[in-house]
Amino acid sequence: ITSKLPSVGTTIFTTMSQLAMDTGAINLSQGFPDFDAPEFLLAGVGRHVLAGQNQYAPMTGLPALREQVAMKVQSLYGRTVSAQDEVTITPGATQAIFCAIQATVRPGDEVIIFDPCYDSYEPSVQLAGGTAVHLPLQLPDFAIDWQRLADALSPRTRLVILNSPHNPSGALLSRVDLDRLAALLRDREDVLVLSDEVYEHLVFDGREHFSVLRHDELYARAFVVSSFGKTYHVTGWKTGYLIAPPMLTAEMRKVHQYVSFTAVTPLQWALADYMTAHPEHVSELPGFYQAKRDLFCERLAQSRFRFTPAAGTYFQLADYSEIRPDLDDVAMAQWLTREHGVACIPISVFYQVPPSDVRLVRFCFAKREETLMLATEKLRDV
Amino acid sequence: ITSKLPSVGTTIFTTMSQLAMDTGAINLSQGFPDFDAPEFLLAGVGRHVLAGQNQYAPMTGLPALREQVAMKVQSLYGRTVSAQDEVTITPGATQAIFCAIQATVRPGDEVIIFDPCYDSYEPSVQLAGGTAVHLPLQLPDFAIDWQRLADALSPRTRLVILNSPHNPSGALLSRVDLDRLAALLRDREDVLVLSDEVYEHLVFDGREHFSVLRHDELYARAFVVSSFGKTYHVTGWKTGYLIAPPMLTAEMRKVHQYVSFTAVTPLQWALADYMTAHPEHVSELPGFYQAKRDLFCERLAQSRFRFTPAAGTYFQLADYSEIRPDLDDVAMAQWLTREHGVACIPISVFYQVPPSDVRLVRFCFAKREETLMLATEKLRDV
Ligand SMILES: CSCCC(=O)C(=O)O
Ligand SMILES: CSCCC(=O)C(=O)O
Repeated sequence: ITSKLPSVGTTIFTTMSQLAMDTGAINLSQGFPDFDAPEFLLAGVGRHVLAGQNQYAPMTGLPALREQVAMKVQSLYGRTVSAQDEVTITPGATQAIFCAIQATVRPGDEVIIFDPCYDSYEPSVQLAGGTAVHLPLQLPDFAIDWQRLADALSPRTRLVILNSPHNPSGALLSRVDLDRLAALLRDREDVLVLSDEVYEHLVFDGREHFSVLRHDELYARAFVVSSFGKTYHVTGWKTGYLIAPPMLTAEMRKVHQYVSFTAVTPLQWALADYMTAHPEHVSELPGFYQAKRDLFCERLAQSRFRFTPAAGTYFQLADYSEIRPDLDDVAMAQWLTREHGVACIPISVFYQVPPSDVRLVRFCFAKREETLMLATEKLRDV
Repeated sequence: ITSKLPSVGTTIFTTMSQLAMDTGAINLSQGFPDFDAPEFLLAGVGRHVLAGQNQYAPMTGLPALREQVAMKVQSLYGRTVSAQDEVTITPGATQAIFCAIQATVRPGDEVIIFDPCYDSYEPSVQLAGGTAVHLPLQLPDFAIDWQRLADALSPRTRLVILNSPHNPSGALLSRVDLDRLAALLRDREDVLVLSDEVYEHLVFDGREHFSVLRHDELYARAFVVSSFGKTYHVTGWKTGYLIAPPMLTAEMRKVHQYVSFTAVTPLQWALADYMTAHPEHVSELPGFYQAKRDLFCERLAQSRFRFTPAAGTYFQLADYSEIRPDLDDVAMAQWLTREHGVACIPISVFYQVPPSDVRLVRFCFAKREETLMLATEKLRDV
């Protein structure tokens, strides 16, 4: 059998989490918390399971959960979306991304991806028969190079994938960015936008997440993806959602219906209950994670790593060129894990062609205070 | 936007379940139980959620659950499979099917599908750029026409999809059937087999399910898919698995890794615990469901529906030509739902080209005794 994805190996997230386990290192690699979700949310699962909520949910998701998502979108982004025709609950945000791509990309189509980026985009495009066109974000701010984007748009361009807050850099897109994109696409009705906003609530220092949902012109051609797992500290629940105008939603659902049919019923009930009872969760999240980022960064500042505190997400990039300039980032991540007991992610894996001089690794600070204290203690010794 | 799946509408399962809700009819349409799973299994979910099992599981599934699957396969089918390299836990059997198809079917490839069949096969093949070649099963037994299969094999054939026990007919493949298939494929190394065995434990009257896992020659080129949802009465948990030789598993996982990354963590723990504590569940299942089939069939025999009791699955086909020969099966299903308060599935939706004279509807008997009593009372009055 010849592989349809010959260049795909095991994801770096699997590799590094495994290495952390094997070596007993503190795992700041894969993006998941080491603390638990609110008791109220967790208790809801057992309650709904015991109450018999264990059969197929409607294909599009539980109406109660879709309503809660629509209400959140209304209150945070001022957009009225139809819970029935524009919101779809999916088995994870990764799957929402996959389905949006499958629903719209055809063989020969081009999809614009900004590197560094989450590693699922490219294989999803490949499986749809499309070609990923990689554009590098500009260092040191990970900003979009608009001229390069304008030059890269071709008659075959079908989709542009955005990700803000940005994994792994934490960079945010602004209203001005979205305006520029809208202007570039104005005479290209056939180009759609897929906006990965799974870290939408993780923005710091009073910054605002400028969702594509706030931009009328872009939203008209967009899929917006988010994640209950990231927002409610339950990445293992693999539950996310996709918002798109009715026509795009209809096409995405045709794929979703045959990829998974629906998402897990009792988890959807527990999430709907919790969102109803605790709408403040999402507004408290920036402060909650900013405290973690601040703790991590204040202590990391005493090390020989160099960095600018992340504007968003729960990831912190750090430059190690004063420590081991001789190591590439993959070797550095392994060395840090093995020799200093802290696992991280090398940034080059988020690139098709990594910049040759890249000396950056990514730490996840979605961890308990004691974990962050211990990890930074180790990192200061490096 | 031009649809990539122009012929796809809402699945019949959604439509009929919705009609049942709207009209207050007893829902014998979509395949899910109206009774609950064992208390021990259900209680496990809440326990693991509260114990903090809420972050990403390993991409391939929890080792403990993969081990349990491997042990079951050993004890039921006498095959030793590697929990590490041959078993993958998926967010539902539908998704396992989708990923196996995506991993192996390329544009221009042909996939052989026997009609009637589950409605996800064809769109999954289409999304991979392949072409579904539909061969009708022979009425009245829903047997494979081997000559037609031999004739249909072409140089472009890439995959043959089997489904036993068969939805919607309940028919079973025998060892002889698998031998014939193996013989036909002997000089066609490039043709793979996808065996949908989600009803593997639902076989009646002392019959045996002859899994592809029992057939060395076929297994060497096969993906075998099953469902925890169907087996443990929790269809809404959307958790299934796929077994395949290491090389095929590796390719399937490359797709799975980007379609969903992994399945839900606490559900996997609860299933692993329950399988460990209650290995007898699967051996008791035939008797459990046979009692339901017998109750349903004995009482349906007093109606004007005509049928042969299903050999497997939890579905019963019934011929209504003595009742309303004037109605096609879609109209009949709607009429039964609206006028007689029992929802069912018309069989023609499982066909690309339904036989013109088909007068069959499908009832799901995975229901409590009182539901079956009430439903058959209504059906006797038709
Ligand atoms: C399946 S890993 C999901 C992505 C993530 O959390 C990460 O970037 O670490
Ligand atoms: C998502 S519906 C799954 C298939 C099934 O249960 C049925 O055939 O009714």
